[in-house]
Amino acid sequence: MKIILTGAAGFIATNLLPRLLGDGHEVHGIDNFFLGKREYVERSTAHPNFHFHEQDLLDRDRLVALFGKVKPERVWHLAANSDISFGTKYTDFDLKGGTLVTYNLLEAMRLANVKELIFSSSGAIYGEPEVLPTPENYGPLFPISLYAASKLACETLITAFAHNYDMRAWIFRFGNIVGPFPTHGVIHDFVLRLRDDPARLTMLGDGTQSKPYVHVEDCLDGMMFGHRHAREQVNCYNLAVPDATSVNQIAEWTIEAMGLRDVPVERSGGKRGWKGDVPYVRLDTRRMEALGWTPRMSSDEAVRRSISEIVEQFTGRASALRP
Amino acid sequence: MKIILTGAAGFIATNLLPRLLGDGHEVHGIDNFFLGKREYVERSTAHPNFHFHEQDLLDRDRLVALFGKVKPERVWHLAANSDISFGTKYTDFDLKGGTLVTYNLLEAMRLANVKELIFSSSGAIYGEPEVLPTPENYGPLFPISLYAASKLACETLITAFAHNYDMRAWIFRFGNIVGPFPTHGVIHDFVLRLRDDPARLTMLGDGTQSKPYVHVEDCLDGMMFGHRHAREQVNCYNLAVPDATSVNQIAEWTIEAMGLRDVPVERSGGKRGWKGDVPYVRLDTRRMEALGWTPRMSSDEAVRRSISEIVEQFTGRASALRP
Repeated sequence: MKIILTGAAGFIATNLLPRLLGDGHEVHGIDNFFLGKREYVERSTAHPNFHFHEQDLLDRDRLVALFGKVKPERVWHLAANSDISFGTKYTDFDLKGGTLVTYNLLEAMRLANVKELIFSSSGAIYGEPEVLPTPENYGPLFPISLYAASKLACETLITAFAHNYDMRAWIFRFGNIVGPFPTHGVIHDFVLRLRDDPARLTMLGDGTQSKPYVHVEDCLDGMMFGHRHAREQVNCYNLAVPDATSVNQIAEWTIEAMGLRDVPVERSGGKRGWKGDVPYVRLDTRRMEALGWTPRMSSDEAVRRSISEIVEQFTGRASALRP
Repeated sequence: MKIILTGAAGFIATNLLPRLLGDGHEVHGIDNFFLGKREYVERSTAHPNFHFHEQDLLDRDRLVALFGKVKPERVWHLAANSDISFGTKYTDFDLKGGTLVTYNLLEAMRLANVKELIFSSSGAIYGEPEVLPTPENYGPLFPISLYAASKLACETLITAFAHNYDMRAWIFRFGNIVGPFPTHGVIHDFVLRLRDDPARLTMLGDGTQSKPYVHVEDCLDGMMFGHRHAREQVNCYNLAVPDATSVNQIAEWTIEAMGLRDVPVERSGGKRGWKGDVPYVRLDTRRMEALGWTPRMSSDEAVRRSISEIVEQFTGRASALRP
């Protein structure tokens, strides 16, 4: 099957690509290398069924032309600003890179008569919910970051296009996804900071923020399972783990994995990592369970495995994290 | 107080303006006359405290400049595409006229340090909900029109800006608002069609669509009451009536009000008026009641009064609707 994959040089797509190609699909990846990395996408460029298109999804004409040429049957839409704090500094960043890009993609799908969309949304759309763990039918939805506002705006565009143009959509509201080939995120940041300066570790917030961390392999399993088994027109699922890990715990394990000891942690303080951060997240995972899928790794297991993977990727040395 | 009013030549603003000016506010109205009417805004242009600015809210630089000059303390944001079916034909119509415009407005507020926003959202954001009457905390939110998708996207931008830039917002999810000085809507359309051709009345759908109709005077009372008494950072209320009126009933009363008899009604058929229409709407009004406000008119009373007002406005003759 011909598939368009957006954010093709990003974290999740880099892990997804070998699976799609291994399943025999013809994959057309799109990325503008704003957050995605050339070395990540180059892992797949030699594959005969992979075609890479360096272009900006904001260029609608070019996107429509590509869809007209490729005539894909399915779209994996993973492109996004995943650096949430960035969107508070530049208030139109998520509007452009999230909402407008998703509109362009849906319009290109409509014009090329593409019927299937798989979309990475976020548990951040719940804002600071009064119900924890938070189920998919929670309301009202008052997101507190422009990133989350854009993810929810994308969801609404998707549901409206699905209804009006007979598309089917799978929307997954992610917990914090971790694993190899990161472009951002707390583990990535800690490893790079400790590599560059092992004498201290700076941290946003007071470190008590705690969220469900999902290993990217579980995340991909879950998306593929959900896509296969959920058969509504719009299928919307939390994709997370029932437990959670604190930032302080991640710092401790990362220091250990780097083979360091007694590294002073300098906390910026406050309960949020940044304005718009939701410091305490628990996502209700029972709908995915009812569909028949559960993650293999707990939050702590996903974090520990990812720390080792990222330490090895970015330092070239084995992780010293004890089992 | 200095107030910016968007959609100033539109239906709701035309009814609101005399109240704001009567309360002694300095009002700066903005409209591009895409849907708004010059003759409506001209009702207020002689007032010394009213200043009209003909400009497009999509022109962000001009909007930011206006905010910098006026230095408003409050914004009533009523500008929108209120012709929902239009947004299905031009898929970027609501994205531009709703989402991007609302972003521009919030950004202008942020730069000018404006802290209060009153926003007209819509019960359409609930899509086709499984719970009727639908409460404000209903989820999941799967809107089925691009109009509703944009209204919800606007809500998410508002909640994120409110959190990040210390604004306060009042979001009212409207039922169908009716009353004098309409620019669109079923009563407006029926009156104009019967005026132009009293021999038949065409109707979208099978006429069994039924929705809560709110008179614009009740709507304005409710918004002003809500703004005075709801004191959260983000205040979100359904603004509707508990009952509803069918399109067939509206047609019957409009024919009677026009002094006509035995007019054949030609129905396009199907349960929806158009793709993306939600044919059966009931909004839970208990939160506004708990705040201390109830509408004076039922749905039927609001419809009957509006029919008479609109017949008199557009035909110059008295309504023949019997009490």
